[in-house]
Amino acid sequence: MMAIWFSPLQQNPQQQMSVTPALACPIPLERYPHVLMAHGGGGWLMRQLIEEMFLATFGPELDWQHDAASLTLAGKRLAFTTDSYIVTPLFFPGGDIGSLAVHGTVNDLAMSGARPRYLSLSFILEEGLPMETLWRVVRSIQQAAEQAQVRIVTGDTKVVDRGKGDGIFINTAGIGTLAHQEFIGPRSVQPGDAILLSGDVGRHGIAILSARAGLTFETTIESDSAPVAPAVLDLMNGVCVHCLRDLTRGGLASALNEIAHSANLHLQLNASAIPIGNAVEGACELLGLDPLYVANEGRFIAFVPDADAAQALACLRQYNQAAQVIGHVLESSSPNRFRHGQVTLKSTLGATRVLDLLSGEQLPRIC
Amino acid sequence: MMAIWFSPLQQNPQQQMSVTPALACPIPLERYPHVLMAHGGGGWLMRQLIEEMFLATFGPELDWQHDAASLTLAGKRLAFTTDSYIVTPLFFPGGDIGSLAVHGTVNDLAMSGARPRYLSLSFILEEGLPMETLWRVVRSIQQAAEQAQVRIVTGDTKVVDRGKGDGIFINTAGIGTLAHQEFIGPRSVQPGDAILLSGDVGRHGIAILSARAGLTFETTIESDSAPVAPAVLDLMNGVCVHCLRDLTRGGLASALNEIAHSANLHLQLNASAIPIGNAVEGACELLGLDPLYVANEGRFIAFVPDADAAQALACLRQYNQAAQVIGHVLESSSPNRFRHGQVTLKSTLGATRVLDLLSGEQLPRIC
Repeated sequence: MMAIWFSPLQQNPQQQMSVTPALACPIPLERYPHVLMAHGGGGWLMRQLIEEMFLATFGPELDWQHDAASLTLAGKRLAFTTDSYIVTPLFFPGGDIGSLAVHGTVNDLAMSGARPRYLSLSFILEEGLPMETLWRVVRSIQQAAEQAQVRIVTGDTKVVDRGKGDGIFINTAGIGTLAHQEFIGPRSVQPGDAILLSGDVGRHGIAILSARAGLTFETTIESDSAPVAPAVLDLMNGVCVHCLRDLTRGGLASALNEIAHSANLHLQLNASAIPIGNAVEGACELLGLDPLYVANEGRFIAFVPDADAAQALACLRQYNQAAQVIGHVLESSSPNRFRHGQVTLKSTLGATRVLDLLSGEQLPRIC
Repeated sequence: MMAIWFSPLQQNPQQQMSVTPALACPIPLERYPHVLMAHGGGGWLMRQLIEEMFLATFGPELDWQHDAASLTLAGKRLAFTTDSYIVTPLFFPGGDIGSLAVHGTVNDLAMSGARPRYLSLSFILEEGLPMETLWRVVRSIQQAAEQAQVRIVTGDTKVVDRGKGDGIFINTAGIGTLAHQEFIGPRSVQPGDAILLSGDVGRHGIAILSARAGLTFETTIESDSAPVAPAVLDLMNGVCVHCLRDLTRGGLASALNEIAHSANLHLQLNASAIPIGNAVEGACELLGLDPLYVANEGRFIAFVPDADAAQALACLRQYNQAAQVIGHVLESSSPNRFRHGQVTLKSTLGATRVLDLLSGEQLPRIC
């Protein structure tokens, strides 16, 4: 028989036991002692966390947030990516957390030029979630996977106590096959490249916001959540694609800023060429949001040589009439250690302004 | 200019919009209208959810919870698996949520006989989490990945509002390569097979419980959390392995029940052969827990032909002296539509009792 002692409950048991050797936290703790919503918002606070903590620890070749990692296994090139989905509310016009969890991950695979093949699916459920709600989400996942032609092959279910989650969180990881040999990503972007946008922007964010706040617009604004792989694979068939990126958290402006930063180039856009629906434009005006920073879930940008731009546009318009050439790539003007590359927007009146990276998302928990 | 209406806030917007055609929920809603903690606990409520909702929707060949899915891509066989980690507290004797998130997923890959190669890593952080805590977990992940010889190649970060999460949840998905052609899993189990256990059981669950409740035992009980792939790959080198399973939620008894159920066979165990440390046995006696149902994170069972049992045991003892042959596989006695296969335990006094599947985990949020 052994003895047992009940010691007073420790408020923070993690403070008591050290498992890893001390190494200073790379994020300045006096300035950011805690994780903020903006650390997940797609802006520069998230970039700081990714670059200074995650890339510094796991290696600079790590893919984090954007694109998919490219692996070579026995001579075969694969793409591998992951995303967790925490959108609130769970259901919104044009989609739900289930369809989003499929579209988001297959689109990340497509952005590396891969054909999406397999998904994993992991649920973190909150105790007390209506079983009927789970069932509706499961059905939606099944339909979205069928539409995107991916198979869900492995899964996991965890349940957390009431008040320690928020209904349903979903993680999907995806594997795709890469048929091409080119590297598709920011470092392939060249000065002179045309920048194409696959459709109108801002619908996903406004759809979420309206569902969350109980807003009703004259026209129901539906999320653009959809798989984009068919358009991408079709585009790559005839055109040399240098870089692709889907527009999610932080919208068009953040995606362009990430690419300008990674490629150390200057991206110049024409405001008049950027397609924004009337309903989204009106809603953004009323709500004080900039549609260029509003989240999307079925839109992407493609960088192609200017000579291929017309053919690329014709291809994208088969999938969405609103597709446009929205700008071009220039040499970076004055790189310094604080800023690599920048994005500028030429207004309809001819004035040019810098389109900067925000600290976080205008609206949290969008995907 | 467009009009906007502010309608009263909807309590449950998901109740208002239907996105999927109605199809009756396969879980009886009058009995289980809500998700319970036990639906994630590794017992029969989780089995019901998996079989009747997930496998029925995504296909019976889906891997859920156990083992890894086996994929063939361009003639190359891969294993693919996923797990989310929600353990509380985040740090416990012998490990933390970070090392657990690496070990759990590489062990799932090893259970299909695969060599773990790549991991994805996705965080769901709660607003207000101390940055220092995140950093300690990131360091622990890095060290565990290095030890397990896997590379973290893609990641994602999401942040949820305070009170909508619980510090840190982690999802890892893993890709491994399969060198062998045999199918390792319950349907390869044969009557006459010997059942081997790779070490003593119950340490992870008791370590978590003591950290959570502030219990102090005479001896500190450390989690057994560790990668098992080296032992498994070594075992497979010389021995024909029919089935492998790591013992996590629900412990040894639940893992054996799952295999007996899937293989429709009778597994007979000798109680005296099952290695349980004195400290774990004492703690379980005091706390009223059955160590055969307590979670582990670095233990597995292997089914091998009886003729190979001695060689297999010698191999496993190189990694853990406590490894044992704990029983054998018999023909199933009386299968019926409610019970396929069963697990029985012969006590040291010669009496035999059925080791059943519980409805959930004795202790929630263990992994």
